Amino acid sequence: MFTLNENYLKLPGSYLFSTVGRKAREFSAENPDKKVISLGIGDVTQPLAPAIIEALHSAVDEMACKETFHGYAPDLGYEFLRNAIAEHDYKARGCQIAADEIFISDGAKCDSGNIQEIFGADNKIAVCDPVYPVYVDTNVMAGRTGTYDPKSETWSDVIYMPCTKENQFAPELPKKTPDIIYLCFPNNPTGATINKEQLQKWVDYANKVGAVIIYDAAYEAYISEQDVPHTIFECEGARTCAIELKSFSKNAGFTGTRLGYTVIPKELKSGDVMLHSLWARRHGTKYNGAPYIVQKAGEAVYSDAGKAQLKEQVAYYMKNASYILNGLKEAGYSVSGGVNAPYIWLETPNKMTSWEFFDLLLEQANVVGTPGSGFGPSGEGYFRLTAFGSYENTIAAVDRIKKLGL
Amino acid sequence: MFTLNENYLKLPGSYLFSTVGRKAREFSAENPDKKVISLGIGDVTQPLAPAIIEALHSAVDEMACKETFHGYAPDLGYEFLRNAIAEHDYKARGCQIAADEIFISDGAKCDSGNIQEIFGADNKIAVCDPVYPVYVDTNVMAGRTGTYDPKSETWSDVIYMPCTKENQFAPELPKKTPDIIYLCFPNNPTGATINKEQLQKWVDYANKVGAVIIYDAAYEAYISEQDVPHTIFECEGARTCAIELKSFSKNAGFTGTRLGYTVIPKELKSGDVMLHSLWARRHGTKYNGAPYIVQKAGEAVYSDAGKAQLKEQVAYYMKNASYILNGLKEAGYSVSGGVNAPYIWLETPNKMTSWEFFDLLLEQANVVGTPGSGFGPSGEGYFRLTAFGSYENTIAAVDRIKKLGL
Repeated sequence: MFTLNENYLKLPGSYLFSTVGRKAREFSAENPDKKVISLGIGDVTQPLAPAIIEALHSAVDEMACKETFHGYAPDLGYEFLRNAIAEHDYKARGCQIAADEIFISDGAKCDSGNIQEIFGADNKIAVCDPVYPVYVDTNVMAGRTGTYDPKSETWSDVIYMPCTKENQFAPELPKKTPDIIYLCFPNNPTGATINKEQLQKWVDYANKVGAVIIYDAAYEAYISEQDVPHTIFECEGARTCAIELKSFSKNAGFTGTRLGYTVIPKELKSGDVMLHSLWARRHGTKYNGAPYIVQKAGEAVYSDAGKAQLKEQVAYYMKNASYILNGLKEAGYSVSGGVNAPYIWLETPNKMTSWEFFDLLLEQANVVGTPGSGFGPSGEGYFRLTAFGSYENTIAAVDRIKKLGL
Repeated sequence: MFTLNENYLKLPGSYLFSTVGRKAREFSAENPDKKVISLGIGDVTQPLAPAIIEALHSAVDEMACKETFHGYAPDLGYEFLRNAIAEHDYKARGCQIAADEIFISDGAKCDSGNIQEIFGADNKIAVCDPVYPVYVDTNVMAGRTGTYDPKSETWSDVIYMPCTKENQFAPELPKKTPDIIYLCFPNNPTGATINKEQLQKWVDYANKVGAVIIYDAAYEAYISEQDVPHTIFECEGARTCAIELKSFSKNAGFTGTRLGYTVIPKELKSGDVMLHSLWARRHGTKYNGAPYIVQKAGEAVYSDAGKAQLKEQVAYYMKNASYILNGLKEAGYSVSGGVNAPYIWLETPNKMTSWEFFDLLLEQANVVGTPGSGFGPSGEGYFRLTAFGSYENTIAAVDRIKKLGL
């Protein structure tokens, strides 16, 4: 008689964004006259840039012709894309990452969910709190997190690193020693960053205790300030302790086009075994590559035209971020983020819980955000708004929130 | 100190098709004057059909415009595609599969690799021997297969169901009771099929012993004979014991475009828990959907024009299959498959091992095939050729093999 992976049954409730989406849909269904504005799920709204559209059309034409048709992609991804990434995202920043240390995938969510597979079941993970739920949930599914305490909403075997107003949303080195450390900067959900010196401390720490850092740099394109590292490989020693995840979702609007990559330096080893080999084996066995047309679209992201157009697109969203940040500050909210990230993190007014504020905002302002508590216990009393809406909707949403007079 | 998933280290050698590809590349590099023809990896060569190209261009245009841009896809996939699948692949065959029992993915390789995750670590799997390597390898990675015996090339905890000439390449019910049974018909690699009555026996057996059948129907489009089931859901009782995997790779040439789906009926349960819920949770947590443009391309597969064009494309490959089958028969080879499947399965001449024949064919005929032993111990002494080449190459390859005079 077959049995289930019981770890799945330990997961409390459903995936955060599914719940947010369901509540928003239900409200709209019951209130068809109300125009709901979503600043909830971090989904982009601007169309793909012209250079990308052009590359897509051209790649589609290639697929129409026997001579230029493309079947299975190479295991790690096409070289044209891996070369472009190595050149623009690493070499241009003075970081030595070879093209064959880059694995093309269909997005950072998949990679950040799958990467834990190559580690032993006994590894202890450390996560920021609040945190992107995928890191923890996928470790729960793998049985790596111990038991869940519904009261504190924490797992017994997870090391939580609180990120709150008190530490400027920057985690401190944990007291218990972890084996795998998930870091995401610019951060989702808080929008916070750490500077190069701070990140170097993490790299040194990981090398000292023999931990691996899984560095999620999905929001790198939004960095506007100097001294905020664009990749963990700017830090000395990162090649022996870090895996980096990158996405095309937020810098190029690929949430519905799907492309990302993972970097595993060949020096990152356990004994004699390269993590690179294990991930290559996973890629070759369980994955079959991102579509050729999408990899060509990814290449266009690095063209001169693509870069110029995407700079504008990021600026568009960051104008929204500024508007939210300043608007809410004026209204007396305590807010952060929004400077190097498309996320604004605010404290709920009047000591409301995150979900209370979610419901109130949905019902009274018809604005959807994301409850901070959905990202972890230290997110309770906080709330995330995203800058990914249209400018018009963003203005309208902020005005509606202001009018609540909370 | 972090540790590795030791199960990965148990995997012998590298993924079969990586080795085949490497050997072919090395030979070409050393013999630049020789024109190597590949009938090895099951990769298609015909361009995407006009109806699909049109749908892709049109979807790309949608992505260029704010009003019609698409971000994150719904968790299960777009309804337009799930409805088309439910209608054409199931309702039209008298099978009751609801659209919300269909999960869109980026291909059957990923699904067939990931599906084992929702089952307990103690489940015993049964596989045909020979078999598509992904089923076994992904269970190795999950620690479900016991120890490897390099002599017999088998895993201690896997139930192997030999498929040889003696049983017309149709597995018999296993003597030990499995929990998870992988079946693939039309079969990769043997090209064999079983009829509806035979498949019904498997469904009845699974329901009796409480096993789940993972039914890989990736080659369904190649069925030409009556009484060969197109889906396991043609069998009575399949809704309580079967998961079906389908791919757009072989019926529509999507190997480089990436689209597939998995069907999990809501009646398939362990106690009160639907497997559907677990897979939905996995999909929502570790996956972010197939690209919108690719899902639109998938929809076009079911349009009248798409269906007509793809019928021709399948016929093109099946003409190759016939040519290989008949040509090798004439040359005195013992061959099977090639009637309801794009694969021809042959016995190596002169009792050569599969890899000996691979090397000989590569070196003397400059033809790449796939060694049967790479698919499992009972594949030793067999060899797979695929019908996915161009007609010209297929003719040339068969003629070269004939000329070897083996």
